[in-house]
Amino acid sequence: MPSRETQALILKVALELFNEHRSASVSTNRIAEACEISKGNLNYHFRTKQDIILALFADITVEMNRAWYEDHRNPTMEHMAFMFVRQLRLIWRYRFFYREIIPLLRESKLLRRRFNEVRVRRVAEVKRFMKGLIAAGLFRTDYTDEQLDLLITSTWVLSDHWLNHIETTGQDVDEAAFRLGYDILVNMVTPYLTPTGLQALKRGDELTFLPEPIAPA
Amino acid sequence: MPSRETQALILKVALELFNEHRSASVSTNRIAEACEISKGNLNYHFRTKQDIILALFADITVEMNRAWYEDHRNPTMEHMAFMFVRQLRLIWRYRFFYREIIPLLRESKLLRRRFNEVRVRRVAEVKRFMKGLIAAGLFRTDYTDEQLDLLITSTWVLSDHWLNHIETTGQDVDEAAFRLGYDILVNMVTPYLTPTGLQALKRGDELTFLPEPIAPA
Repeated sequence: MPSRETQALILKVALELFNEHRSASVSTNRIAEACEISKGNLNYHFRTKQDIILALFADITVEMNRAWYEDHRNPTMEHMAFMFVRQLRLIWRYRFFYREIIPLLRESKLLRRRFNEVRVRRVAEVKRFMKGLIAAGLFRTDYTDEQLDLLITSTWVLSDHWLNHIETTGQDVDEAAFRLGYDILVNMVTPYLTPTGLQALKRGDELTFLPEPIAPA
Repeated sequence: MPSRETQALILKVALELFNEHRSASVSTNRIAEACEISKGNLNYHFRTKQDIILALFADITVEMNRAWYEDHRNPTMEHMAFMFVRQLRLIWRYRFFYREIIPLLRESKLLRRRFNEVRVRRVAEVKRFMKGLIAAGLFRTDYTDEQLDLLITSTWVLSDHWLNHIETTGQDVDEAAFRLGYDILVNMVTPYLTPTGLQALKRGDELTFLPEPIAPA
């Protein structure tokens, strides 16, 4: 198997195992075994488990950057709905990372730095997107800049931790759970909308914006 | 040392160690050592580390119940501010639990059940409190019951995960971090307030509602 394919296989299998168990309880040996490759071969690609986690976070970042690339060109309520759901999907795909985020970031200064670079950039982009909604007459103009910042932070924290919250309640992470997360995010934004924004949101609600099937936890 | 005092000492020391390190990396032997008691003595009080964690959660529950007892008799904006900050304080005191909440709840069915009994009861009490705010003319009447439920869930998720969020950003958990959490929660509630409610909130803002000093992380 070519080197590149081996690397991709290791990351795919590691992600599955980390999501199924905790990353702390999955050894690199176990990953090599599940990949049906030798321990030496795995070590050649990734020296430590930490390196695998960093590579998986690089994958998250690539996916986010690709997805975000054109967001600000699309200041519509439909796109906002799509952005919310897209983020929840991404978090679910890499759920081990968000479940174990505190210990993982505590253990790696590099991961902490990268995670925060992404966050800072994204918050600025969401702000740009919201300014676009204001310019399009969908968001009200009578909120202060500070209030918009607080709104962005709350939607951010809510997105990042929503699936964790669902898991703590003992509910399945299924379509209904995603839908409720979406409803909560929309409910946070609703007071900021103009009548035009509210109407557009209602139209967006009828869209099928949950294209991927969900595998229960 | 009487039995009861030993038990309290074990819980106090375990909490300190769990908060400082991760509960997964603190053994009962290490707790016994830090308490300067024998391993047998610790085992006499708590058979496993899981039992210690359950006892600590029982402490959290007692503190919450005591604090919540009279909330609904006090439907004021000042009290709402106090409730928010009180909850953030409690979470900070028992921070290992909220940092590791997903694995801890996954590992213990009993803990999961207790955690959710508390949550369900609390959500009902917060709803009762909000109905009190409506009756007092502080909350608007033109939101649906469903919107109030979504608001309660969002403030709940935000409180539970706020300090985790701060830790992921690499910021210190200091007075400013608590203040920002409070501002965000208030910002979420603001659109639901009547003019009277808004005025009362402004008065409440001038109160000193952060009585305990914060020890940085």
